[in-house]
Amino acid sequence: MNRYPKITLVGAGPGDTDLISLKGLKALSKADVILYDALVNEELLDYAPEHALRIFVGKRASHHAFSQSEINKMMVELAQTNGHVVRLKGGDPFVFGRGGEELAFAAENGIPTAVVPGISSAISLAGLQGVPLTHRGVSESFWVITGATSAGTISKDLYAAAHTDATVVVLMGLNKLAEIAHIYQGVGRPKLPIAVIQNGSLPNEKVVLGTIDTIVDRAEQQQISSPAVIIIGEVVAKHPNFASERQQEETALTL
Amino acid sequence: MNRYPKITLVGAGPGDTDLISLKGLKALSKADVILYDALVNEELLDYAPEHALRIFVGKRASHHAFSQSEINKMMVELAQTNGHVVRLKGGDPFVFGRGGEELAFAAENGIPTAVVPGISSAISLAGLQGVPLTHRGVSESFWVITGATSAGTISKDLYAAAHTDATVVVLMGLNKLAEIAHIYQGVGRPKLPIAVIQNGSLPNEKVVLGTIDTIVDRAEQQQISSPAVIIIGEVVAKHPNFASERQQEETALTL
Repeated sequence: MNRYPKITLVGAGPGDTDLISLKGLKALSKADVILYDALVNEELLDYAPEHALRIFVGKRASHHAFSQSEINKMMVELAQTNGHVVRLKGGDPFVFGRGGEELAFAAENGIPTAVVPGISSAISLAGLQGVPLTHRGVSESFWVITGATSAGTISKDLYAAAHTDATVVVLMGLNKLAEIAHIYQGVGRPKLPIAVIQNGSLPNEKVVLGTIDTIVDRAEQQQISSPAVIIIGEVVAKHPNFASERQQEETALTL
Repeated sequence: MNRYPKITLVGAGPGDTDLISLKGLKALSKADVILYDALVNEELLDYAPEHALRIFVGKRASHHAFSQSEINKMMVELAQTNGHVVRLKGGDPFVFGRGGEELAFAAENGIPTAVVPGISSAISLAGLQGVPLTHRGVSESFWVITGATSAGTISKDLYAAAHTDATVVVLMGLNKLAEIAHIYQGVGRPKLPIAVIQNGSLPNEKVVLGTIDTIVDRAEQQQISSPAVIIIGEVVAKHPNFASERQQEETALTL
């Protein structure tokens, strides 16, 4: 056991355990403590040594959730008492992951830190579905936006994004789907393709394709729930099933 | 050797060989052919079986570069003759990686495909430097934009991005750094923090910090060259060295 205090922020990837990096696995194998979130695949904990403490600090229905400041303190105290703390977070630690706050708190307390980036669901889940976030002649950029700011609202940045040609990715925004559709309708883009991906990269992955005008009904019919990623833009039409779903929709409309 | 034709697009990550995913390594270990780009760390080729063909298809000074349509054809023909082709690309295959075009060409030719996402330099290199792309109260989104469209120009999306609170990440834009600075100066943001990271995640990584007004001179003084990622936004001030560099600058100005 290594008693030198150290904190490593590790991105666990989008869900599939094989989508963690080799460097992330190496950090886990040298952990004395693992503090992990709700979106982390718990099978990853098997890569840690037997002696390592495994502490769940995420939010789950009916469980007390730790506040960020409680997690910060726990992280520093456990580093001081137990040695190497791996802070294991879904996706990448810095994409709406509060990684910046944890790094700053560790630094204030004089604990050395390291970072292991992760495969973010913001980028990877579209690609796994055959949807390229960028595509020559279609999209020259992508904009990743939170659906849940610290005030609980959708980011105001989405209002600006709806006017641009960027592919837009919204994380933690499923319960704002109707509001998102409304924003795009308000700027005259009711036919823009949109996809919602639940449990991306896992065996229980679900995907719903549609347009701004149809997506709310479709997501409801398919009983899509969180965690889910929303992808908005012409690139969504590159999904192998998009054309056939659009045709079904048009047939349904003309009946 | 597996003779069933198959093409797997694999993201190799930003440079550090340990930043490839476990799934990417497994794909490499089952490759009959690897087609790899200039930004791929060649040490990753050691994970492939001895019999696998290793073919460099990237652009390098003084070498003939294959066109995208030549790469597409080679990929399909080699799958038909040799079996499993791994198309190994820097970062993630769909972040300005032409992955969408390769998937479409494979599908047109009836070759089964799979995708293994990668850690994109767009997200990971900032985090490795302690710069969080998103941070509560500072940035609720990030926008990733190409500095090299198919016409060779910077994407027009950057003109829109300069007006927003999004953290902006520009890939393949180092030779447009002065133009980028000019765009931000034009919207009255000369003091906005900006970072340029060359060879991110590798031992020869170089980082230059500054503001819109100072970055061009600083990057020149430090002899920064491609490949480099540019990060623009208030979050850059979270870099551990940012405050001291700013102070140096102010001291220099008052001398």
